[in-house]
Amino acid sequence: LPSRLPAVGTTVFSRMSQLAAEFGAVNLGQGFPDFACQPALIDMVGEAMRAGFNQYPMMTGAPPLRAAIVQKIAALYGHEYDAGSEITVTAGATEALTTAILCCVHPGDEVVVIEPAYDSYLPAIALAGGVPVLVQMELGERGYSVPWHKVAAAVGARTRLIIINSPHNPTGSVLRGTDLAALADIVRGSEVLILSDEVYEHMVYDGARHESVCRLPELAARSFVVSSFGKTYHVTGWKVGYVAAPAALSAEFRKVHQYNVFSVNTPMQHGFASYMADPAPYLDLPAFYQRKRDLFRAGLQGSRFELLPADGTYFQCVRYAAISDLPEAQFAEWLTSEVKVAAIPVSAFYQQGKESGIVRFCFAKQDETLALALQRLAGV
Amino acid sequence: LPSRLPAVGTTVFSRMSQLAAEFGAVNLGQGFPDFACQPALIDMVGEAMRAGFNQYPMMTGAPPLRAAIVQKIAALYGHEYDAGSEITVTAGATEALTTAILCCVHPGDEVVVIEPAYDSYLPAIALAGGVPVLVQMELGERGYSVPWHKVAAAVGARTRLIIINSPHNPTGSVLRGTDLAALADIVRGSEVLILSDEVYEHMVYDGARHESVCRLPELAARSFVVSSFGKTYHVTGWKVGYVAAPAALSAEFRKVHQYNVFSVNTPMQHGFASYMADPAPYLDLPAFYQRKRDLFRAGLQGSRFELLPADGTYFQCVRYAAISDLPEAQFAEWLTSEVKVAAIPVSAFYQQGKESGIVRFCFAKQDETLALALQRLAGV
Ligand SMILES: CSCCC(=O)C(=O)O
Ligand SMILES: CSCCC(=O)C(=O)O
Repeated sequence: LPSRLPAVGTTVFSRMSQLAAEFGAVNLGQGFPDFACQPALIDMVGEAMRAGFNQYPMMTGAPPLRAAIVQKIAALYGHEYDAGSEITVTAGATEALTTAILCCVHPGDEVVVIEPAYDSYLPAIALAGGVPVLVQMELGERGYSVPWHKVAAAVGARTRLIIINSPHNPTGSVLRGTDLAALADIVRGSEVLILSDEVYEHMVYDGARHESVCRLPELAARSFVVSSFGKTYHVTGWKVGYVAAPAALSAEFRKVHQYNVFSVNTPMQHGFASYMADPAPYLDLPAFYQRKRDLFRAGLQGSRFELLPADGTYFQCVRYAAISDLPEAQFAEWLTSEVKVAAIPVSAFYQQGKESGIVRFCFAKQDETLALALQRLAGV
Repeated sequence: LPSRLPAVGTTVFSRMSQLAAEFGAVNLGQGFPDFACQPALIDMVGEAMRAGFNQYPMMTGAPPLRAAIVQKIAALYGHEYDAGSEITVTAGATEALTTAILCCVHPGDEVVVIEPAYDSYLPAIALAGGVPVLVQMELGERGYSVPWHKVAAAVGARTRLIIINSPHNPTGSVLRGTDLAALADIVRGSEVLILSDEVYEHMVYDGARHESVCRLPELAARSFVVSSFGKTYHVTGWKVGYVAAPAALSAEFRKVHQYNVFSVNTPMQHGFASYMADPAPYLDLPAFYQRKRDLFRAGLQGSRFELLPADGTYFQCVRYAAISDLPEAQFAEWLTSEVKVAAIPVSAFYQQGKESGIVRFCFAKQDETLALALQRLAGV
């Protein structure tokens, strides 16, 4: 059987989690919290099940959840989506990303991808028959940034889509208002669409705000905006996310979504809808994770790891040049098997496996977990 | 934005459910039960959530659920799949079907589809760039059957895949051992794969047995077998299904699955795993639904609807020539709006909308619901 995705192996996240389990390592690799979600959220899902919300929900999403999403976006970013025609609930953000790509990229269309890039973008583009055009972020004094002049140069007559991601996985960098303005300049007057992966939207630190593309009407009008409840509410295994997009884009999205998964877990949708009535859980998230970030960074001060800036997401990237000249994948494996702390090589986010001597740690962990990891990392 | 699926509208199931709601009709259209699942199943999901099974499960599925699936298949059909490499848990059967098609159909490959066909097959083939080759079932004295000589004629050098479905939606027909033998004759010596949609595997009546393709080793070796927990356990909204396939096929399936949805709702997987320890719920299902089928058929005896055989699934097809010469879609709308019983036009399962004067009713309903529907239908 000839493969549709010959370049694809098991994701780096699965592999490193497996390795962490094998070696009894503290798992700071795959991005998920090791602490419990709020019991109230679990109770609300239980109530939904007992109330009989167990059959097919609407293909587009349970109406109360779509209404809650619209409200949240309006309150945070000032953009008013229509719950009926512009919001679609998805089987996690991964389904949202892949469905968005499949619904608009035709064979031969070009898609601009900014590296390092989340590992699902390129296989989804390949499935659609699209052609990725890669632009690499630049790493300077103040961390990673997008060189917009290179993005502009990568856009041409065959460009269908630009994929952006902020807060950015794996680098933890965040786009600023000036970045969105640069992006708007590039696409203005063209038919280029934007896929904006904003799953870490509630994890921006030091008082900065999340610059959702939907803040700019001219960008919102051509964008698929993707987010995830799993990241926000500490339940990555519940696999519920959403796409917000203008009606014409949502209509195409839904054509693929309805034949890809048809619809999404009913009780979880109703649980989230109830839980979202209180905005506190996501409003409190920046402070919650900033404290963990600071705790983790403080613990690495004085170690031989060099901390890169971490402005958003629950990831901290570090240079390890002072420790080893191993390639990133081997260094991450060594850290896991010998130091007993698992990390993710940033090279896994580059099509050509670019080596920068940098690995990524996830700090979405209990303080005790972070303390144990720090103790081990300090000795390296 | 040029559409990737120009032929696609909102599914007939969503449209008829919406119409049923508008007109206050008894909804015998979209296939889902209107009764509750077992409270024990809900409790098991609640326990899984409280026990902390809320983060990413393994991409391939939670190990205890995969083990339970392997055991069930071995007990019922005598085929021993390997839980590690041959079972993948999916976001419902729809994701399983679409992912199976996307992982093996290359642009230009032909896929043999037997009509009437579930409405997701053709859009999934279109997304993959495949070319459907349609063969129509024949309707005789004993109901619908597959003309295998026509399937044989449809298979050629470019055929990648044959999609079969038994028990069959919408016709309620079931394949017999002779059908599988005919299929085996067609594919023997070729590289043609089989996608076998068996989501109604536990709904076969009158003492007949379900002829899973995995009963025949030579078919199992080239088949993706799809099933659904939603149909079996009365929770269509939980969106969990699976694919069983030989390791080489499963490897390709997983490449697409991991970038399509990555993984599937953790608490539901653990809930099903616990619940499957007792086989009674699925062993009792034929008797449970046969009683409803018989009740529904008895109620239509003496009406002007002509009953077709209903050997499996929870669907009953009827001819309405004695009542109306409207096309099926209009007749179904008229039934919904005027008689206040929603049905599904079988024409929606044909690419060219073939008219046979037949609509489909779903009898997975409480006895009271069926009684109310029968009272209304009797007067037509
Ligand atoms: C889908 S598993 C990967 C989780 C994640 O987003 C990450 O670790 O980057
Ligand atoms: C996914 S909604 C359709 C449910 C179903 O299988 C049917 O009604 O045929």
